[in-house]
Amino acid sequence: MAKDVNFKGVFPILVTPFDDKEVVDLESFVRVVRFMAEIGVDGVTILGVLGESNRMVDSEREELIMAAVAAADGRIPIVVGTSHKGTQATIYLSLMAESLGAAAVMVTPSKEAVPDEERIFEYFRKVAEGITIPIVLQDHPGSTEVHMSGPLILRIVREIPRIACIKQEAPPTPTKVAALISGMVDRRVPVLTGLGALYGMFDLERGSDGYMTGFAFPEALIAMAKAVRAGRREDAWELYRRFLPLIVFEQQPGIAIRKEIYRLRGLLRSNRVRHPGAQLSASAGEQLRSVMARVLPGVDITRPLEL
Amino acid sequence: MAKDVNFKGVFPILVTPFDDKEVVDLESFVRVVRFMAEIGVDGVTILGVLGESNRMVDSEREELIMAAVAAADGRIPIVVGTSHKGTQATIYLSLMAESLGAAAVMVTPSKEAVPDEERIFEYFRKVAEGITIPIVLQDHPGSTEVHMSGPLILRIVREIPRIACIKQEAPPTPTKVAALISGMVDRRVPVLTGLGALYGMFDLERGSDGYMTGFAFPEALIAMAKAVRAGRREDAWELYRRFLPLIVFEQQPGIAIRKEIYRLRGLLRSNRVRHPGAQLSASAGEQLRSVMARVLPGVDITRPLEL
Amino acid sequence: MAKDVNFKGVFPILVTPFDDKEVVDLESFVRVVRFMAEIGVDGVTILGVLGESNRMVDSEREELIMAAVAAADGRIPIVVGTSHKGTQATIYLSLMAESLGAAAVMVTPSKEAVPDEERIFEYFRKVAEGITIPIVLQDHPGSTEVHMSGPLILRIVREIPRIACIKQEAPPTPTKVAALISGMVDRRVPVLTGLGALYGMFDLERGSDGYMTGFAFPEALIAMAKAVRAGRREDAWELYRRFLPLIVFEQQPGIAIRKEIYRLRGLLRSNRVRHPGAQLSASAGEQLRSVMARVLPGVDITRPLEL
Amino acid sequence: MAKDVNFKGVFPILVTPFDDKEVVDLESFVRVVRFMAEIGVDGVTILGVLGESNRMVDSEREELIMAAVAAADGRIPIVVGTSHKGTQATIYLSLMAESLGAAAVMVTPSKEAVPDEERIFEYFRKVAEGITIPIVLQDHPGSTEVHMSGPLILRIVREIPRIACIKQEAPPTPTKVAALISGMVDRRVPVLTGLGALYGMFDLERGSDGYMTGFAFPEALIAMAKAVRAGRREDAWELYRRFLPLIVFEQQPGIAIRKEIYRLRGLLRSNRVRHPGAQLSASAGEQLRSVMARVLPGVDITRPLEL
Repeated sequence: MAKDVNFKGVFPILVTPFDDKEVVDLESFVRVVRFMAEIGVDGVTILGVLGESNRMVDSEREELIMAAVAAADGRIPIVVGTSHKGTQATIYLSLMAESLGAAAVMVTPSKEAVPDEERIFEYFRKVAEGITIPIVLQDHPGSTEVHMSGPLILRIVREIPRIACIKQEAPPTPTKVAALISGMVDRRVPVLTGLGALYGMFDLERGSDGYMTGFAFPEALIAMAKAVRAGRREDAWELYRRFLPLIVFEQQPGIAIRKEIYRLRGLLRSNRVRHPGAQLSASAGEQLRSVMARVLPGVDITRPLEL
Repeated sequence: MAKDVNFKGVFPILVTPFDDKEVVDLESFVRVVRFMAEIGVDGVTILGVLGESNRMVDSEREELIMAAVAAADGRIPIVVGTSHKGTQATIYLSLMAESLGAAAVMVTPSKEAVPDEERIFEYFRKVAEGITIPIVLQDHPGSTEVHMSGPLILRIVREIPRIACIKQEAPPTPTKVAALISGMVDRRVPVLTGLGALYGMFDLERGSDGYMTGFAFPEALIAMAKAVRAGRREDAWELYRRFLPLIVFEQQPGIAIRKEIYRLRGLLRSNRVRHPGAQLSASAGEQLRSVMARVLPGVDITRPLEL
Repeated sequence: MAKDVNFKGVFPILVTPFDDKEVVDLESFVRVVRFMAEIGVDGVTILGVLGESNRMVDSEREELIMAAVAAADGRIPIVVGTSHKGTQATIYLSLMAESLGAAAVMVTPSKEAVPDEERIFEYFRKVAEGITIPIVLQDHPGSTEVHMSGPLILRIVREIPRIACIKQEAPPTPTKVAALISGMVDRRVPVLTGLGALYGMFDLERGSDGYMTGFAFPEALIAMAKAVRAGRREDAWELYRRFLPLIVFEQQPGIAIRKEIYRLRGLLRSNRVRHPGAQLSASAGEQLRSVMARVLPGVDITRPLEL
Repeated sequence: MAKDVNFKGVFPILVTPFDDKEVVDLESFVRVVRFMAEIGVDGVTILGVLGESNRMVDSEREELIMAAVAAADGRIPIVVGTSHKGTQATIYLSLMAESLGAAAVMVTPSKEAVPDEERIFEYFRKVAEGITIPIVLQDHPGSTEVHMSGPLILRIVREIPRIACIKQEAPPTPTKVAALISGMVDRRVPVLTGLGALYGMFDLERGSDGYMTGFAFPEALIAMAKAVRAGRREDAWELYRRFLPLIVFEQQPGIAIRKEIYRLRGLLRSNRVRHPGAQLSASAGEQLRSVMARVLPGVDITRPLEL
């Protein structure tokens, strides 16, 4: 059974690997989960936007959850993205995750029907009542087109105890992170940084508790988060500065660049993205290798980075 | 096995009935399908926008398709909405429909990833290659936010033989219907009217071939389409004028009004809409009964209308 | 100086006439304003969405306001649409209208920057503080993509005395009209129906106070509103039923159909719409004449309708 | 009269300064223009998104153009953003800019009416026919929600000689820059980087010709562009790496951070943003000073940077 998760630290959002025919490649997926457990992440999140969850059918979701839980083998908690336009369907997918051993679910609201603060609150309340594992509230207007105000998020956290974490990715994030943290007077839940870690250092400086994002070198995020926690802020900045060109390049819209890094790291057999997502352009692939050569010169990226 | 469908006439889009706990109510669903077969529709479409397909999980889709096919019992073809943001997932859902006995699928593109005429074309091409039953191309920017130009739709029809019908609901529809029909010089497929039949007469006058929409008195649409086909245009107009207040009232955004009519017709046990969709307001329910009393005074709506 | 306006009755939204080179045709505009005064409307609104205000420069706005005020010559109040993405600019345009003799302004919020209930409230508050004439609050998500909740509108009406009227066009409108009217316990302002009068009868039945919309036969709206006020509900319904096919046809997206009706009524020299708006298609023009022949057989539409 | 502009190099997009009452502060604006001329930019662009052009009335536009042209005094060309939802209005604003001495205009399409490749093409063609100075085509879906395909942009450049430059800001930009440059076989116009220079180095590596963006230390962009042109790629990378934390922080959504940097540089009297834009939060202001201290330790930023 899933134990309580401490949502501090680094929770990589995982890609969903496909073969060249866009069929789920479970072998690569298992390899990625195991790799994450080995490098010391605090958990992983599957079936998020980066995991192309909006291009998956339910039976694929099921096999991915099972594979992740089995591969983690209790070493790290598995968080599962279960957002759906229908509230009942979100509950259904969340219960499926729960029953298969997920430690938590990640949920974000949809702009349909008409967005309404009360309706968004109800959505979270209903999902919370329908399951027994914790919920990560994802605030990501870039994919949802739903703009949750600070007061709305604070109310959800205050009134729904099952909300265990906020994944904050509504830029400008440092300002929102600061506002949320100062607003959580009754009940403080961890706030994690997303958006490919682009604003990572700035969010950490405002009090965020780590990362839940897809940057394909989580070792760097672990090192940064640890440095900040240990009060070694200069070291954290040093890491941020070093990796920033790669962070910027990688977080461009689309998923192919990240998949290519995972492939270059020896974890995926293919960088294939499901249609209608864009595949890696030759131009982008070449430029990726060039920027990696600058940031990680002479480093064997198929092995965990030592930072 | 599904025989070829002639997409002329009236194909009601069906609601998905739920009980008061939002659980699928198959018994009511079967009743609706049988009712449609009895009143002489040319087919029915399930799991469209009106069917709240975006709030269903895959196993529910499966049971609804099975129930519809069984209830139709070969008397009318079942068309299944299978649109999904991922192309592979659309194929998967379409194959599921095909294997369960659906006669055709209805497909509309998604605005993610970035809309692009070429990508939309590819989407339809790939789906067409993945299945063996006909495709109804749905053009409904109101739900998809994808604006397909006339030339794009004509190209899709011309180059993808599996496209067997256009469900046209991008207003102003009469103008687009006329443009599509005059543009289909090599290959003419039927064009059906949607949008709750709001522009029904105007589309028919421009050459449309019938209706694929959710108006809860399909008998009126059948009578109108027949009248136009028989050259009795005044009769068609008479019907349009008579039912228009109800058509206007019913096609307001939201689904609850339609479900309430089905309930009042004795077909559904509940008018429940799945969260976060809006339930019927007391005000709207009262007004609905009032407008029905005007349009159908003294008529027993639990029985097929005789028009 | 502008006297207080009583926002009950019928306030047609006027088109902005152009010649065939898209230059403002003031002569036709003056003719339209005078025609409205003659048929007994309670006021007119210029520079709304229908007036293509989003395609006008400020100097054109100025000459249109001057021309309308002069043509009205004190017989009817002129309401001016002054919405702008910037609050200061809305105030500037509103002050211009005020100084030129407008009786009120019509204002709707913009979705930029990020929509936020507090920011929308502030927008109305600031505009109200910057001017001295009344404000019509327009609730039209179809053009603004801003969804104002009922409680937000009620708060704006309650706290900002300069708000003198609500133009309600967020469907389902009858439900929202009913909710607003029952919610205005402290301060009740008139609620007017928009959206081309599509839901006109239904809104009136829920308590709306008339029309502020662009239907090109305002005589019908005047007659309907009068009939409802006089308790002659059946007469109102008779009119609604009679005109509904034309209302439905006319309110299709785009402006060209309305301009063509005005042209056929002898008020405009051209039905030209400014680029990139769509011009009247030959198909739509033909169909318009056909539906008018049905609704108004043998009627000389260049003269005020007698209803 | 405006001479032909060579759109290579660095063209800062300027802010529009306001005083604390949101009134245009021309004195500060003149100071900014002169500062830019002194540090050796190749031109400046006013009244872009960053210039809050969507919150300005026409008379303010006029005075800003006059002030910029006067302040530049022939030393640098002034490019003026003149996008408007109406094509005629874009022409009007462009002619105003032209008559006041602007060297070029910057134009981007609007998503209204319904986006359509042909309509976007016509928009540019009509604007080009209406004026005699060059046009910078801006591709910025982030503000316009219009996604122009590569083939569409190439067609516009090929068929409309007045298009003199592409401001490319549809991420992933390096891929699109590469595609555009390889596609411009008949006629090659410069491609400039926007988006706050976030992808600056990557775009330059793919062949872009410089910057047209609002990063508040244009000296860094000038130095980077020069280094790339001179083949000193390592130097360019060194600069990119150094400034990247500031670039990332500054390009967060909103304008207040940039205005604050200009204020700290002694160029603006106030960092005020026009309502409903967000003002600088105390938190963001503090963090900005901290990141500037890291990137530019001990540097007097009120003087041109020497890099």
